[in-house]
Amino acid sequence: MTNDAFTRDELERAPSRFAERRTVRFHDVDAANILFYPRALEYMSDVYVALFAARGYDLPRALDAGDVGVPLAHAEADYVSPLRFGDAIEVAIVAVRLGTKSFRVGYRVTKATGGVAAVGQTVHVCIDRKRFAPIPIPDEIRRVLA
Amino acid sequence: MTNDAFTRDELERAPSRFAERRTVRFHDVDAANILFYPRALEYMSDVYVALFAARGYDLPRALDAGDVGVPLAHAEADYVSPLRFGDAIEVAIVAVRLGTKSFRVGYRVTKATGGVAAVGQTVHVCIDRKRFAPIPIPDEIRRVLA
Amino acid sequence: MTNDAFTRDELERAPSRFAERRTVRFHDVDAANILFYPRALEYMSDVYVALFAARGYDLPRALDAGDVGVPLAHAEADYVSPLRFGDAIEVAIVAVRLGTKSFRVGYRVTKATGGVAAVGQTVHVCIDRKRFAPIPIPDEIRRVLA
Amino acid sequence: MTNDAFTRDELERAPSRFAERRTVRFHDVDAANILFYPRALEYMSDVYVALFAARGYDLPRALDAGDVGVPLAHAEADYVSPLRFGDAIEVAIVAVRLGTKSFRVGYRVTKATGGVAAVGQTVHVCIDRKRFAPIPIPDEIRRVLA
Repeated sequence: MTNDAFTRDELERAPSRFAERRTVRFHDVDAANILFYPRALEYMSDVYVALFAARGYDLPRALDAGDVGVPLAHAEADYVSPLRFGDAIEVAIVAVRLGTKSFRVGYRVTKATGGVAAVGQTVHVCIDRKRFAPIPIPDEIRRVLA
Repeated sequence: MTNDAFTRDELERAPSRFAERRTVRFHDVDAANILFYPRALEYMSDVYVALFAARGYDLPRALDAGDVGVPLAHAEADYVSPLRFGDAIEVAIVAVRLGTKSFRVGYRVTKATGGVAAVGQTVHVCIDRKRFAPIPIPDEIRRVLA
Repeated sequence: MTNDAFTRDELERAPSRFAERRTVRFHDVDAANILFYPRALEYMSDVYVALFAARGYDLPRALDAGDVGVPLAHAEADYVSPLRFGDAIEVAIVAVRLGTKSFRVGYRVTKATGGVAAVGQTVHVCIDRKRFAPIPIPDEIRRVLA
Repeated sequence: MTNDAFTRDELERAPSRFAERRTVRFHDVDAANILFYPRALEYMSDVYVALFAARGYDLPRALDAGDVGVPLAHAEADYVSPLRFGDAIEVAIVAVRLGTKSFRVGYRVTKATGGVAAVGQTVHVCIDRKRFAPIPIPDEIRRVLA
């Protein structure tokens, strides 16, 4: 397992490795009129998927082929300042820690007007999808995350 | 702040305090055909909101009145075994830790057929919504969580 | 094709054939603080899926087996009165019209306090999922909808 | 009311007036591995909100001010060909029909590889949000939609 978590400080300060700009959507807020907290993890999932596409790893085809999966073992987020409908944000991958069969990805959500809105991290385990059993991280996934 | 996190072991073993039964919906899975991981946090948010309703705290009215909010400072989940469309589950609140201005809630998602699917925890900070500044946990919220 | 649409009046008046009670969730509203309109169609999808489960049709297994699909050809909703976080509602299937290769389902969302919130209808086409080509409605699906 | 619906043919052929490119996300599909049908309406809502932003109408501020709302009276979509995770699409506003107190907007979702995936339309009623009562379409909203 990839044991060592990123500290919140690391995630707030590390340079961006890959990022997407987006806007908090009309339907991403909740009845308290701030970002519904699981949506921050959706944003992190989206930039993670975008990274794979940008690096030429065809995730849709890999899922169709069906051999390798990278399900989540853990996800977490710290909410630093609230986001509201219309806020322009950048969602960045800021850190990666590779283990043997699993890897950890760190994220940061920053407001276009400045200031960190949230940081987070996910731990993914590489599996053989037929047996749902751990396998070593395939080379082409190592390459995407390097 | 409520510093001490629950251990995964605590969340897996603690008795349920309040629970909802539900089914993994047709649109809760992702392209890998297992539960999209932020949905587990949606399930936890839903049981948290249901607890308030069940204990007679009118959250919709409190949000309209607009004085007190309990936004998230932190959320996390550990994914123990995958969930698929149609799986019958129970989502339970299994632990609460009350601080002065914040509190921590622990959750467990269990399959109806047996076995833990996920555990998680959220940290909420009580705020004055007009100033978005921390305040002591109001008595009626202490009562709900006690 | 199943050409004749249900009128709004039909859907408002027809008796319920199958219904689910639910509550408008914290994260089902949008930045205008009323139900985000596609959520009404999610509610309709949920009661449709629940009908299949209640009638003993194992939709998850049918999707795994992979032969028959019933994708949407059309969906629509009329919004009669706004729904807000916490509103108790009933989502009902109130009408079904069976064609040869497609069928139409009518829905009504009613507030527990009385009054119609929305009506809607969906047109589903039975297909062979491998070819994505229309096929006659299988008998076990006719039985569910009868 | 804005009575005359757009025909499917009109929506398939009309030139684009305003469009967004996006990709079908990992979590926009359902257990049948095609786009969950209410998501098409989310896409339409997103491009509608983006139009307001692009034309300088500050929807977040207007909602805070709280006077004018444009809730949905009706929404519908026709699904022409299935969308899958990773599909590159363009979501366009292709038609607008202005009434006195309401307006109708037409949409088309096109695959980057060619071919219409879906068309849709929404009817919005301008209201005074305090009374939830219809009002004439304000000039600044007419300007956005012109």
